[in-house]
Amino acid sequence: MKYPDPTSITRVTSIGGGPIGGGWAAHFLARGYDVTSYLHDRAEEGAFRTILDTAWISLTALGLAPGASLDRLRVVHDLDAAVAGAGFIQESAPENLAMKQALYHRLGRIVPENVVIGSSTSGLMMTDIQANCETPGRTVIGHPFNPPYLLPLVEIVGGERTDPAAVEWAGEFYRVAGKAPLMMKKEIPGFVATRLQEALWREALHMVANGEATPEDIDIALMNGPAPRMVSQGQCMAFHVACGAGGMATNLDQFGPALKLPWTRLEAPELTQELRDRMVDGCNAVAGDRHFADMAAQRDREIVAVLNALRAAREAP
Amino acid sequence: MKYPDPTSITRVTSIGGGPIGGGWAAHFLARGYDVTSYLHDRAEEGAFRTILDTAWISLTALGLAPGASLDRLRVVHDLDAAVAGAGFIQESAPENLAMKQALYHRLGRIVPENVVIGSSTSGLMMTDIQANCETPGRTVIGHPFNPPYLLPLVEIVGGERTDPAAVEWAGEFYRVAGKAPLMMKKEIPGFVATRLQEALWREALHMVANGEATPEDIDIALMNGPAPRMVSQGQCMAFHVACGAGGMATNLDQFGPALKLPWTRLEAPELTQELRDRMVDGCNAVAGDRHFADMAAQRDREIVAVLNALRAAREAP
Repeated sequence: MKYPDPTSITRVTSIGGGPIGGGWAAHFLARGYDVTSYLHDRAEEGAFRTILDTAWISLTALGLAPGASLDRLRVVHDLDAAVAGAGFIQESAPENLAMKQALYHRLGRIVPENVVIGSSTSGLMMTDIQANCETPGRTVIGHPFNPPYLLPLVEIVGGERTDPAAVEWAGEFYRVAGKAPLMMKKEIPGFVATRLQEALWREALHMVANGEATPEDIDIALMNGPAPRMVSQGQCMAFHVACGAGGMATNLDQFGPALKLPWTRLEAPELTQELRDRMVDGCNAVAGDRHFADMAAQRDREIVAVLNALRAAREAP
Repeated sequence: MKYPDPTSITRVTSIGGGPIGGGWAAHFLARGYDVTSYLHDRAEEGAFRTILDTAWISLTALGLAPGASLDRLRVVHDLDAAVAGAGFIQESAPENLAMKQALYHRLGRIVPENVVIGSSTSGLMMTDIQANCETPGRTVIGHPFNPPYLLPLVEIVGGERTDPAAVEWAGEFYRVAGKAPLMMKKEIPGFVATRLQEALWREALHMVANGEATPEDIDIALMNGPAPRMVSQGQCMAFHVACGAGGMATNLDQFGPALKLPWTRLEAPELTQELRDRMVDGCNAVAGDRHFADMAAQRDREIVAVLNALRAAREAP
């Protein structure tokens, strides 16, 4: 096998001293890895240590891996020294394409070719980032969600010159490292989660622009409406389970016409038979042989747990 | 005062035997009210009782009000008898405008004019529902989010002929009754929460239609990305706090151009100075004198609590 066993990795290098690079370093330390952080500028180190100390409070409350320690962090300012011995590299440099291209050109030369490099970029495509890299096969997107030390999501996709085996390896490695990997089907701007969030955000801005809601109204709606359920069930399974035995098929056949209603300023796609079937088959695949009533009961238990936990966290001093 | 003191209400009538009417009945019972449920069809009663029994499990886990009991429910099939003595009426009849108009015509005659009637409708406007009502002043929208016995949100707005005092009263009553009221600024299709959810949903359908994501991918993204944070902070305050001392102003000034990027198929509004200021002022008003670092720390405590609670709920048998 070209790449090492993901479970054999013990040392990770995190490039970048900002909130994302710091968040990643804290996450990997909490999962019991040795972490080398590369900070371009020595002046960043104070703020960087503060990010880690802040993250550590939450990571401790979530439960540290055996042997996990902030003492297993090494901060260096020399890129060659930073990547030496790394089993994986998480890159969180500034969102500047020319800067990233130059960085990947250099990493492509100094990092052994069987070491996967994941980029935290939220706005760039790997096909562009890897343009000047001589060994692009192992370069992938590994996009976290803010704050990266708490939210489990990592969106994973390669560029045109990425080796599919490296993408698979990254998914497996992130899972071993305690993250929730989403293996993307295609390189698309904004990936999946940011696109969903951005759609919601654009409609929110429309409502504020039209005087229909204030930012406070938007947040009251989200926090008390979709959010506690969305923690337990994404939008697809929420609709699937809410429609009882008929599931997503009932939802689309019954509420499909609502896609034509002016319920947002944002245009919905045509509900073709193919789209309908993809939605229905996808939800049925996730449900497997679970009965909808059991899934609804599990959803309710989880929402109760979330609401009780939130209340306790809000009442705490 | 035209309407009674919201804290003096002890008896509520819930119209409708479906999941929404049943969910509302369960909620009011759990908050310690006497509840009369009107079921149009006697054959509905078995399914209706099952809805209440299911909801009661969760409501008990969340904590019942003193004296709350399922025994304080009375199920009747005569509308005049159902509304007699009610201090508030929650209407959850089928989503059929002609049917609702006929119902409000009758309710307008048999319900005393100082009793507020709230409609659970998700797709109709109160201006239309109240068209044939002779006493429309006290008719309002009180739209819950599914499941209504668990999610706190209620969106409140009147129609053209609704008395503004009745809208205010409904907001106060729902708050007393343990809900999180959102006082809407205008009557708009889909209200606030459904519009936000629908925007996200339309982009999700686009991604599935284009083969960019499966329903499972959509849900992985939501559950592990935005959702655990959105329980603690809506999208406005999440961006406000993530941008540190600069808050929403930094977010819009820095990421405003991203509204032009093809990060969704859905068009964003023009980011005018007025829109920018409404967003910034709105977030600053919510933040008050709290420091962004304290808000970030509180967010992290809440996300930790939510993640730990979810893990426990998922591991439970």
